[in-house]
Amino acid sequence: MLSKNQIKYINSLQQKKFRQEYQAFVVEGAKSVVELLLSDFELESLFVTEDFYKENKPTLDKQPLAAEIVTQAELEKAGTFATNNAALAVAKTKPNLELLVQEGEFALILDEIRDPGNLGTIIRIADWYGIKKIICSESTVDLYNPKVISSTMGSFTRVKLYYTNLAEYLGKRTEKIYGTFLDSENVHTVDFATSGYIIIGNEANGISEQVEKLVTDKITIPRFGGAESLNAGIATAVICDNLRRKN
Amino acid sequence: MLSKNQIKYINSLQQKKFRQEYQAFVVEGAKSVVELLLSDFELESLFVTEDFYKENKPTLDKQPLAAEIVTQAELEKAGTFATNNAALAVAKTKPNLELLVQEGEFALILDEIRDPGNLGTIIRIADWYGIKKIICSESTVDLYNPKVISSTMGSFTRVKLYYTNLAEYLGKRTEKIYGTFLDSENVHTVDFATSGYIIIGNEANGISEQVEKLVTDKITIPRFGGAESLNAGIATAVICDNLRRKN
Repeated sequence: MLSKNQIKYINSLQQKKFRQEYQAFVVEGAKSVVELLLSDFELESLFVTEDFYKENKPTLDKQPLAAEIVTQAELEKAGTFATNNAALAVAKTKPNLELLVQEGEFALILDEIRDPGNLGTIIRIADWYGIKKIICSESTVDLYNPKVISSTMGSFTRVKLYYTNLAEYLGKRTEKIYGTFLDSENVHTVDFATSGYIIIGNEANGISEQVEKLVTDKITIPRFGGAESLNAGIATAVICDNLRRKN
Repeated sequence: MLSKNQIKYINSLQQKKFRQEYQAFVVEGAKSVVELLLSDFELESLFVTEDFYKENKPTLDKQPLAAEIVTQAELEKAGTFATNNAALAVAKTKPNLELLVQEGEFALILDEIRDPGNLGTIIRIADWYGIKKIICSESTVDLYNPKVISSTMGSFTRVKLYYTNLAEYLGKRTEKIYGTFLDSENVHTVDFATSGYIIIGNEANGISEQVEKLVTDKITIPRFGGAESLNAGIATAVICDNLRRKN
């Protein structure tokens, strides 16, 4: 059974200041918790329903931490999901370590992505396209926000994020820095370098002025109809798909 | 001023049964209302703040219907937006008319898209890529749902939707019918026909069995990393981008 204090503690982790204070975050739902258990994140506590326990016994038995059996109602009280008949884990956050691309590697740069669902979707897309590093402006929403974690669909375990001052960070880079703008080079015909950075701008304002100055190659997703823009996640996917294609 | 009855009526249009009964729907926010005013949708009523009125006077003066000046608080009481300092319109829905592709044209087929945000995003993507027709299963969320309308960012005025039984509809088609599956032909190397249909499956279950039988060409978005899937909107964008590229 989850005690009142445990529920209070887990609830508090919905807020960034408590996640930072306790260096912990919450993962909810079957898919995300299973991915967490298979990752190198350190677990603090693990609450599962009897059904989830039975279905995932081999994985659970390998954990250094014993899972506590609780009810669906308890999971829903502790977490943010309206429905959770599976599992909830508290894991330790990772330190904010600098990330750089290696030769042959691309990373995403997020210039103030504010919406948790968008950040989660972008992490999932990066994971699909084999991009393992994302560098975020300090104003980008926190990776450990429960909505971000849940919308990554488990991809937060495979993609690393680093929060920093983008102008300072990009100022020191020697690789190509691609950014999406209107009326620039068509992404369908861009000959991408073998390594570099791709900047995704803020949902409403695009790429900020100080970051724009550091872009080496401006690119455009061609438009064939009437919509004024694409959202940040969609633009990320289209650019990554063009980056990865070989012909 | 908005009367109690007007607010009650507008509120009722959040529900599909009342939208069908009154053949009307609600459009909220500056961008969407401006696009509505420039479209061929018939207006039933139009409520705007003084600021919106001043900024859009030329467009508003061209309307057959006079805009009523109201306060931000009234707009927020009538509509679904937490913040709306611009406008709210009630417009007539359009009849559900059959849509077919012409020579040289592609349409999207939505096989049970349930999430309003996903449908809105897909409509916006279709509009960006110049796709003007979307055929939806009867189980796909209603176009006139306020969340669908708002997430199209105005693209609902340029893309037509037709709700029907997909198996019956597709059974009569002679054009190519593309559907996304795992381990099929790489979309990067598919030589698309000049006209046809592209099926987007349900968020959780993909393309249904009875629709799958009618697919002529199975295609796959290649994966380079660890994520298990892409969401419906992302998959739509990547396929449309591949469809439109010339090289």
